[in-house]
Parts: sequence; C-alpha cells; structure tokens
Amino acid sequence: MADNSVFVGNKNFMNYVTAVVMQFTTKEAKEVTIKARGKFISRAVDVAEVATKRFLDGQVEVKGIEIDSEEFQNNEGKDVRVSTIEITLTKKKE
Amino acid sequence: MADNSVFVGNKNFMNYVTAVVMQFTTKEAKEVTIKARGKFISRAVDVAEVATKRFLDGQVEVKGIEIDSEEFQNNEGKDVRVSTIEITLTKKKE
Repeated sequence: MADNSVFVGNKNFMNYVTAVVMQFTTKEAKEVTIKARGKFISRAVDVAEVATKRFLDGQVEVKGIEIDSEEFQNNEGKDVRVSTIEITLTKKKE
Repeated sequence: MADNSVFVGNKNFMNYVTAVVMQFTTKEAKEVTIKARGKFISRAVDVAEVATKRFLDGQVEVKGIEIDSEEFQNNEGKDVRVSTIEITLTKKKE
C-alpha cells in the first residue's frame, strides 16, 4: 500500500506481523500505521507488540496511538457505533 | 480505587462506563486510567469512546494511550505473552 498502513482483520495473525516487518525492512518505510475496528483492536495491539518487541526490537517504536468511533447504519437501518484504533510505529533514531 | 483506574474485564459493559463517568462526576477526579489485557483491550477502547463521546462529551478527552506486553507462565509452565493497554482520560481545560 502507498500509505504504509496495515489493516488488521481475521486473517492469520502472522500475516499482519509479517506485513508490518516487511514494510520496515524490504520496503524501507519510515513509519507504518496498524489500523483495526471493533473486536480486531486487541489483535492490532498484539501485532504492534510482537512486531516491535520480537522482530524489530531496538529498531522500531510506537510513535502514537489514536482511538476514534465510526457510525454507520446496519442492514436493518439502525445506527451502529464501532471503535477504531490506529497505532503508528516509527523507526528509532540511531 | 485510590489511583482512579478502571480495570476492564468480562462484567457488563455499562458497569465500566459508569465507573469511569462516576470517577469524573461524583468523585471529581482530574484523570481516570482505563486498563485492560488481551481480548479485553477492544472493550477498553469501547469504554473510553462511549464515556468520552456519549456521556462526557466536551468535558473529557483522551490524554494518552500506552500499550505494552506482560510475560507470565501458564499452568503448564510455558511462557506466555499478553498485550496490555492503558488509556488515560483527562478533564478538558475550560
């Protein structure tokens, strides 16, 4: 993706970790943003923790975390609110 | 609690929202920290969003969010890692 973001859903956990790590290594990204909604928020935090502590320890750190809500209408036309998270990781300065 | 923190687990969702709102209203706290581990992280974000946007809109905002990992041994003596989150809410300046 052009904007270096990884959207976490219900695929295999390591897919997301690998996507984040690859952005920093082979694609030489300076920053990567991990995004998720609803129940996948816990998973996005796991991805950030495993990527920064197990794979990129000492090289990448959490720059900032934003939470927000999105409102939309479900199939029955009811208003539904869902929480979102964006975790931005950045390369550490040498 | 003396340190104004609310630990989110598997009780009824509104219990946690009410606990946060009460800290700011009846107990006049300046800051409240919402904490959770593992799968309850998504829920902690929901609690923060509902408390700040539905109940304390315009009065309270997110001051900062920290994520981390805890390591412990499970019943079989295996090392297990679990992610944690701490969302700190603060009263807005008038």
